[in-house]
Amino acid sequence: MSSPIITLTTDFGSRDGFVAAMKGVILNICPDATLVDISHEVPPHDIAHGAFVLGSASQFFPQGTIHLAVVDPGVGSSRHPLLLVTHNGYFVGPDNGIFSYVVLADLQRFGMSVGELHGNLEPMSTIIIPVPQACEAYILNRADYWLDEISSTFHGRDIFAPVAAHLARGIPSSTVGQELGEIKFLNIPQPVVHGDTIFGHVIFVDHFGNLITNIPTSFGIPKDVEVNIARRTIAGLSQSYSDATLGLLAIAGSHGYIEIAVRRGSAAQLLNAGVGTRLEVKFP
Amino acid sequence: MSSPIITLTTDFGSRDGFVAAMKGVILNICPDATLVDISHEVPPHDIAHGAFVLGSASQFFPQGTIHLAVVDPGVGSSRHPLLLVTHNGYFVGPDNGIFSYVVLADLQRFGMSVGELHGNLEPMSTIIIPVPQACEAYILNRADYWLDEISSTFHGRDIFAPVAAHLARGIPSSTVGQELGEIKFLNIPQPVVHGDTIFGHVIFVDHFGNLITNIPTSFGIPKDVEVNIARRTIAGLSQSYSDATLGLLAIAGSHGYIEIAVRRGSAAQLLNAGVGTRLEVKFP
Amino acid sequence: MSSPIITLTTDFGSRDGFVAAMKGVILNICPDATLVDISHEVPPHDIAHGAFVLGSASQFFPQGTIHLAVVDPGVGSSRHPLLLVTHNGYFVGPDNGIFSYVVLADLQRFGMSVGELHGNLEPMSTIIIPVPQACEAYILNRADYWLDEISSTFHGRDIFAPVAAHLARGIPSSTVGQELGEIKFLNIPQPVVHGDTIFGHVIFVDHFGNLITNIPTSFGIPKDVEVNIARRTIAGLSQSYSDATLGLLAIAGSHGYIEIAVRRGSAAQLLNAGVGTRLEVKFP
Repeated sequence: MSSPIITLTTDFGSRDGFVAAMKGVILNICPDATLVDISHEVPPHDIAHGAFVLGSASQFFPQGTIHLAVVDPGVGSSRHPLLLVTHNGYFVGPDNGIFSYVVLADLQRFGMSVGELHGNLEPMSTIIIPVPQACEAYILNRADYWLDEISSTFHGRDIFAPVAAHLARGIPSSTVGQELGEIKFLNIPQPVVHGDTIFGHVIFVDHFGNLITNIPTSFGIPKDVEVNIARRTIAGLSQSYSDATLGLLAIAGSHGYIEIAVRRGSAAQLLNAGVGTRLEVKFP
Repeated sequence: MSSPIITLTTDFGSRDGFVAAMKGVILNICPDATLVDISHEVPPHDIAHGAFVLGSASQFFPQGTIHLAVVDPGVGSSRHPLLLVTHNGYFVGPDNGIFSYVVLADLQRFGMSVGELHGNLEPMSTIIIPVPQACEAYILNRADYWLDEISSTFHGRDIFAPVAAHLARGIPSSTVGQELGEIKFLNIPQPVVHGDTIFGHVIFVDHFGNLITNIPTSFGIPKDVEVNIARRTIAGLSQSYSDATLGLLAIAGSHGYIEIAVRRGSAAQLLNAGVGTRLEVKFP
Repeated sequence: MSSPIITLTTDFGSRDGFVAAMKGVILNICPDATLVDISHEVPPHDIAHGAFVLGSASQFFPQGTIHLAVVDPGVGSSRHPLLLVTHNGYFVGPDNGIFSYVVLADLQRFGMSVGELHGNLEPMSTIIIPVPQACEAYILNRADYWLDEISSTFHGRDIFAPVAAHLARGIPSSTVGQELGEIKFLNIPQPVVHGDTIFGHVIFVDHFGNLITNIPTSFGIPKDVEVNIARRTIAGLSQSYSDATLGLLAIAGSHGYIEIAVRRGSAAQLLNAGVGTRLEVKFP
């Protein structure tokens, strides 16, 4: 049998020993765990960034992988510590929306409309939703699976890491705490179709400065669309990052969304754009 | 039997192949080692930073873990290559103070006064101390456990990594070289109690800009203390990073020391403070 | 039997989930792979930097290690996806010169002159060379070893990672695709000896700001040479980074080349020098 996989996503950076302390705690409890870093360079306290990175990467891991996510500005306050179980794996972290893209993928998998979930709220503001039918959620309140001493500032080490390690050793989900009916969710903006135009938003900016939008490539967008963003117009979809003669291009990106990119440059810089920037995709 | 764990702490950064070369060397000698990065973003040549990160993280690893630490501005000069064996594990690296917080924790574990060790010296200057009773120290001078060719600039790869890997394979500590009676130590400032006031220093600044002081939470500090730092006064200890209405707060931190923090911000920036900044904690 | 090793070298950075997605794909196919990061902080699109880092670190890994390298500005265009098999291991990535230092080391190992390969071209420009005799090269064109869906922007995840994982599971090299006779190569500048002087270039700048030149220490350079670089003269080779009284020094570096360094500082900054800067080494 292969060893259980635990991934880690945090905003702890790489200068300090925070992440390593969590790994030490895990290896004490589950010595044969395979540890994989997703990212520790999530911008401090940026739950939406962490949620996107986790949602994007976690779907490529084997089913049953345990994903530990600690972007946790409310640590020590009243926010719940959470275990979310989906079709894809186990997700351990604070109940603050960090699992939003994971939940979104699960909803879409079952053909549920996401639009229904969202009101007319600020993009990325926090709302409360019922736990989707295909998932289970548990509040972590059984201290048997925690470290002996719990700090008020580092639940990643004291609560989340040991619970993840015990799950990796095979304890049933239901033993970590009481089942929850509702969880926090980020109000991820959804694209709106109106006539021959899709109105969308940038929801993520990657390391290269590529702008990832919320317009799924599965919408069947033809090659000769017109994209308007930040007062620039892009004619048609490109086939690769390197085939734009003028630099700026739109492309079906690897996250499953339309991306705006610049040949060997940063679209975020060129357009002075970021998360929340609006765009329009016009069908011919 | 689970595979031996080797951690790595360096100031090598992540752009180059230095750390990977060390890992390759280790895996050549001990293919089943579990490698865990503590940090490679220690600021270049900053032994005090590396020492704190290593001391803080290493205590959460299983006993017997091998910790490799290479912040080594004196590589190729007369500083000794060192193996330090403590209650907690094996520490391999240069004899330049990089293991100071590890030694400090070990001394405190045996109830020894640290104050006796320190003179009236500059904070973080290098002193020489006898090897504490519960520890053993060895100078690495048996070339059988090194690479065949030794560069004068990268002992991490050529000496420390192979010695760590041989230890992981189970060679006795005493075979790596001759026992040492004294080691280098950083003069870590100790808090001073005077009347109703504790006088302390900031000894570390973390990724979030939180200021970690040298005042242990085990001093039994009451909730209604007054903290003075950088001409600001903080009334009382907070329960979480998010419960300060005015932003600036003092809290019992996860390293076991009082920390100064700012709600969703950087205390280091707000106060223009860093390692060496003084503070006072006044009891009511 | 120990688990197969797969290393990863990319310019993907650590903020996003790109690298983790590749690791998830690998662990799905080959759950017992040992994954080792070489670097993900290669400057975006900087093939020469990635090539040096990979060439430098890969030689310290066990024979048969699989090295995955994705610095791939031409992804989705006509550049080939490649498997290169050398004496040292398996190299999977785009055919754009990323394996140049690996090939160079292999050529030198067999006593082949590199000078013959290079014309009078711009340093680091891309040329085409025949696959060296001791190596094999294959174009990756058997989609059986790829993911089911291939994006046009992330072959690292969709093609290179799964091929590497299948190689780790033991499929023969020749099954991944058709053999190639020629590969891309970076025109790495070679040192030129003229009378009592070696004329060289800086080919890499490391994390500390040390300037790595293309002048091999194996040239048998005496201790009392004179080095001229950026209008400064350095008298003699130093024994360690810390023994220069005036700061600037030349030393036999750990990559096997002469390096220019500054005691506890950055030579790149002090000299305003970088890749391509010329230097002269004068024999006494």
